[in-house]
Amino acid sequence: MKKVTSIKEMQKIIKDFQREGRSIGLIPTMGYLHEGHLTLAKKARLENDIVVMSVFVNPLQFGEEEDLATYPRDLERDMELAAEVKVDYLFHPTAEEMYPQMQEITMNVGARTERLCGASRPGHFDGVVVVVSKLFNIIQPERAYFGKKDAQQFAVIDLLVKNFNFPIELVAVDTVRESDGLAKSSRNVHLTAGERKEATVLFASLQAAEAIITEGEKNPSRIIDVMKTMLNEKTSGEIDYVEILSYPELQPIEEVGGVIIIALAVKFSKARLIDNIIITA
Amino acid sequence: MKKVTSIKEMQKIIKDFQREGRSIGLIPTMGYLHEGHLTLAKKARLENDIVVMSVFVNPLQFGEEEDLATYPRDLERDMELAAEVKVDYLFHPTAEEMYPQMQEITMNVGARTERLCGASRPGHFDGVVVVVSKLFNIIQPERAYFGKKDAQQFAVIDLLVKNFNFPIELVAVDTVRESDGLAKSSRNVHLTAGERKEATVLFASLQAAEAIITEGEKNPSRIIDVMKTMLNEKTSGEIDYVEILSYPELQPIEEVGGVIIIALAVKFSKARLIDNIIITA
Repeated sequence: MKKVTSIKEMQKIIKDFQREGRSIGLIPTMGYLHEGHLTLAKKARLENDIVVMSVFVNPLQFGEEEDLATYPRDLERDMELAAEVKVDYLFHPTAEEMYPQMQEITMNVGARTERLCGASRPGHFDGVVVVVSKLFNIIQPERAYFGKKDAQQFAVIDLLVKNFNFPIELVAVDTVRESDGLAKSSRNVHLTAGERKEATVLFASLQAAEAIITEGEKNPSRIIDVMKTMLNEKTSGEIDYVEILSYPELQPIEEVGGVIIIALAVKFSKARLIDNIIITA
Repeated sequence: MKKVTSIKEMQKIIKDFQREGRSIGLIPTMGYLHEGHLTLAKKARLENDIVVMSVFVNPLQFGEEEDLATYPRDLERDMELAAEVKVDYLFHPTAEEMYPQMQEITMNVGARTERLCGASRPGHFDGVVVVVSKLFNIIQPERAYFGKKDAQQFAVIDLLVKNFNFPIELVAVDTVRESDGLAKSSRNVHLTAGERKEATVLFASLQAAEAIITEGEKNPSRIIDVMKTMLNEKTSGEIDYVEILSYPELQPIEEVGGVIIIALAVKFSKARLIDNIIITA
């Protein structure tokens, strides 16, 4: 595996592969890799000639009060893990390389970011679509791989590809979980031992919601109430949101039906965790 | 020459050429071709294996009060002219093909649009960068050709390419003029016979400005005053702006020096014309 830090060098490598007609798969990450990322990489390995993983903690998608400085980083470990799953190129530019001047041309994502993390993190997805557009233009992948844990992000990037005609196939991969159900996340390392135990209730509340729906409950508010009660009783964290929306439009629904997302975010002392399930009701 | 109206078909054609390692040159136009466009196409023909010209009047870059409905169109003539200069593909999508849903993700261009046409046409360049991004993603050219008459547009697209890492070389081509100096423009057909005669003073005023600068004048205001007097005395049109700015930053300057643009816009009864010269002072 080769580490590339220069955009120019990366573009030269890509151009050569394109001339040879080789397909490129991209896994965009912020590093501190876990099994979720590696699952994406393994899938990309099966489906493409060349696999590129980007590791870049994108300052543009962090708010001023957020955890840009403390976001966990360990490039040595990331390189070992990426090499193990046979990534060909690890693209790891500095922030100065990606944003040499101010990003004068900005992007603004509309309706799909009015709720969930978009509501809690104003500007977050505007920063995501910029960096993803840049990565798409630098790597020019035939396929790009994203985890379903970031379901709103996937819905936004799906819109980006459609709105801007990127000739890229997006591949959504199931959330990878710990044996007790907690969704794998780079931010899990910031949980205290007590919070780590409590955090299993995030997925448990999603499963409870699905069970209630299977039993016939159609009222989103009642389902959300059950989930909030569970989360409040069984964690010390503060609920950021619990919502049930249409997917991928991410709009409120009056009655459960069609493809829906049940999503939540909980703030622990040093980590804000998200989780969701997408079901057809 | 082949006309293509479907994005999917265009992308398939492009993909096949890429697999063969053939270079693609793109000339984005709004149609109603004149010699300026054809000069771009001839240059593209010399420098690329495949030449694609897009003809698309982009609704997103027109303000509500502007001339979207009356913008001149003549596809039959455009196809004949494009074929004569050996364009390979004329890409001519409908507005519905380019914008099947609302453009939920929008773009916002910063400082470079605060002056000149950006000031007179709020939102104009935000619409330009969206359609150009879409065309870049659909056609994936190695080179894209633009006329220097739209100097602010070129500065904005240059920024777009840099800010978003499009792997595209931009080629700026000199403004093509009528024998009396008037810059060729699709909008010239909307001039009355009288206005057409008056309109020669647009370029004359730019030449006068250059002459004064050569003689040693360094004060932008004094140069602008001379130009405005000329324009007011010799046209019935209304001056929209006359400005002298740094190029390509398009920022005000206190003293003439370095690379500068002298630019003007004049509103006639049914056409708003622009012109400019870029000089090193």
